[in-house]
Amino acid sequence: MKKRHLFAPGPTPVAPEALLAMARPILHHRAPEFETLLAEVREGLKGLFQTTEEVLIFAASGTGGMEAAVVNTLSPGEKALVIRGGKFGERWGEICQAYNINFIPVDVPYGGAVNPGLVAAALEKDPQITAIFSTHSETSTGVLHDIQAIAQVVRKTPTLLVVDAITSLGVVDLPMDAWGIDVVIAGSQKAFMLPPGLTMVGVSQKAWAVVKQSRLPKYYFDFAAEHKNLLKNQSHFTPAISLIVGLQETLRMIRNEGLHNVIRRHERLAAAMRAGVTALGLELFAERPTPAVTAVKAPAGIDGGTIVKTLRAKHGVTIAGGQGSLKGKIFRLATMGYADSSDVVVALSALELTLSELGYPIKLGEGIRAAQEILQRQPES
Amino acid sequence: MKKRHLFAPGPTPVAPEALLAMARPILHHRAPEFETLLAEVREGLKGLFQTTEEVLIFAASGTGGMEAAVVNTLSPGEKALVIRGGKFGERWGEICQAYNINFIPVDVPYGGAVNPGLVAAALEKDPQITAIFSTHSETSTGVLHDIQAIAQVVRKTPTLLVVDAITSLGVVDLPMDAWGIDVVIAGSQKAFMLPPGLTMVGVSQKAWAVVKQSRLPKYYFDFAAEHKNLLKNQSHFTPAISLIVGLQETLRMIRNEGLHNVIRRHERLAAAMRAGVTALGLELFAERPTPAVTAVKAPAGIDGGTIVKTLRAKHGVTIAGGQGSLKGKIFRLATMGYADSSDVVVALSALELTLSELGYPIKLGEGIRAAQEILQRQPES
Repeated sequence: MKKRHLFAPGPTPVAPEALLAMARPILHHRAPEFETLLAEVREGLKGLFQTTEEVLIFAASGTGGMEAAVVNTLSPGEKALVIRGGKFGERWGEICQAYNINFIPVDVPYGGAVNPGLVAAALEKDPQITAIFSTHSETSTGVLHDIQAIAQVVRKTPTLLVVDAITSLGVVDLPMDAWGIDVVIAGSQKAFMLPPGLTMVGVSQKAWAVVKQSRLPKYYFDFAAEHKNLLKNQSHFTPAISLIVGLQETLRMIRNEGLHNVIRRHERLAAAMRAGVTALGLELFAERPTPAVTAVKAPAGIDGGTIVKTLRAKHGVTIAGGQGSLKGKIFRLATMGYADSSDVVVALSALELTLSELGYPIKLGEGIRAAQEILQRQPES
Repeated sequence: MKKRHLFAPGPTPVAPEALLAMARPILHHRAPEFETLLAEVREGLKGLFQTTEEVLIFAASGTGGMEAAVVNTLSPGEKALVIRGGKFGERWGEICQAYNINFIPVDVPYGGAVNPGLVAAALEKDPQITAIFSTHSETSTGVLHDIQAIAQVVRKTPTLLVVDAITSLGVVDLPMDAWGIDVVIAGSQKAFMLPPGLTMVGVSQKAWAVVKQSRLPKYYFDFAAEHKNLLKNQSHFTPAISLIVGLQETLRMIRNEGLHNVIRRHERLAAAMRAGVTALGLELFAERPTPAVTAVKAPAGIDGGTIVKTLRAKHGVTIAGGQGSLKGKIFRLATMGYADSSDVVVALSALELTLSELGYPIKLGEGIRAAQEILQRQPES
């Protein structure tokens, strides 16, 4: 017997409650029963996004939600600002490029967090910018950008702030309305504890005014058409019914635990994970770490990819390696969504054994003890 | 106790084999286990599409696949031809319009099948047409267009033939390579016996040459990027993992039954359904009926919507009503995907009881007997 453990930053383990609900016979999306379910889901999403506005739901993975945000906020000839500090920030630029949108990049070295002052300066220099596209939790580097500070600058201007919150929503506090963020994009396979295939997009009042004027081409990802249907508890096109059935379950779980407690739990587990890896003499990659995923520098002489492969093959543990130019240089451990303190212990134990087997000098149990100390000091809610 | 029965033309009942497979703990899409699974799925899809080319998979519902086909085959300023004879044919026109593509409509009255001669004439008159967009099985009217005849015309020209086969693939014979169809679009919630959320797109060699030159904007739905990844048993973006896990199961079921037998089964059940409703004195709406869904005219004095509602509320049976201008005028019964002869009997029985309750003069059991006669005359494979 070898149990499998998933500590990747997406997909994350699916809650058994959702797996079981999704295994029930399928509902028809135009039947009253599904409409009642969708009404509950709409309210649950508003709570999770901390907004009074509707949260749109598309059958697509997170990138679809990002593309939807671009084509619904911009028109040909308009200018964007793109914050890039990793693969997902770069994706914003790639999408703009695909639609021939001129953008000003604000580049941050991998592992660094964007300086909100640079965004303010760029916006002051060029107030014609229609929208700023940023990542919140940059999954490829493990960095959490200071979206609150950026929002403080942008909300006073006519420019929109569009945030990829795919690995941050439900992980860290992100009060969309209170901070004044205009478009917030989430994905089902992260803190939502569901399989991939749904992207959810919150849209502010300020954004709607721009969306109505936007002239980039769109059909499947049309915010206005989706919004109109959602108000009737329907969708413009056939929705990913089973995932929405699962979403009802996980939104209930989040509501029962309390969003504040869910966020505290993620902080606690990530703090324990960081303490564990640093106690083993390893270095964190991110200057401002996100609780969604802990990015760790591979120790000198050991390839990060070998750590990932050994963890999977010998210990049944799936984590993620580095992407692009970070390949082999870092590895990434996540305790996101359906995760508790036992997961931190299992992940660190497997990591200790792996490092030891690869010849890295550690004392078994040292990482775990450091994590336990954090877990004990910060008791569960 | 009231059992629920789903005879809508999508979503269709999900096979229990798929429900159970999808209820297993989720796999990581970059793990070797998933790559092995995807390799099998690629082969299964080629068999079902009857093509030697790769079949692309996107996390989206069928409309996403249709939009993908438009943006990957056309460039600004190019011309399309759109066959419209129902809601889904019209959708092709709406997508072209969204991308500012000039198109020649070939309009067919609702309930009618397109005359392939009209397509040939339009193409002869305007050989600059880059692509023809057609529906195969028009779900809104219950019509099956003669795609083979259209393909015979188009394959001799440089024009591409793009076919929405969302409710025809796996229901009627559609040998993509043998007929010379260039792009074939399918959806998971029909003959695939899965929940909605996956669209699968077969692309011919002839189409690839055009796709590589196409200049409409695209990012999430980029055929070339998806193809490149698929060859490595990966996907460009996070795939709808659980649905692909289910797809492995249902492709195995289809392979075990044999595609030829699957198609014969759909023909047989639809023939029995048509015999049943006509024996009740009802009229079919489609001049050339698709086996995917049987569209029936509501009898004089009875609203089609009332039939749909009564079936659901009193008999636990979900069917579909008419859409748009057909609302109230027709109702639609499907035995698609996970369906056998017992479903025809249950559907007809509920329909007979409903019609009787609504005051339509029938003799109970008459529709069922007519269906039984067909089922007996055409034994199962």
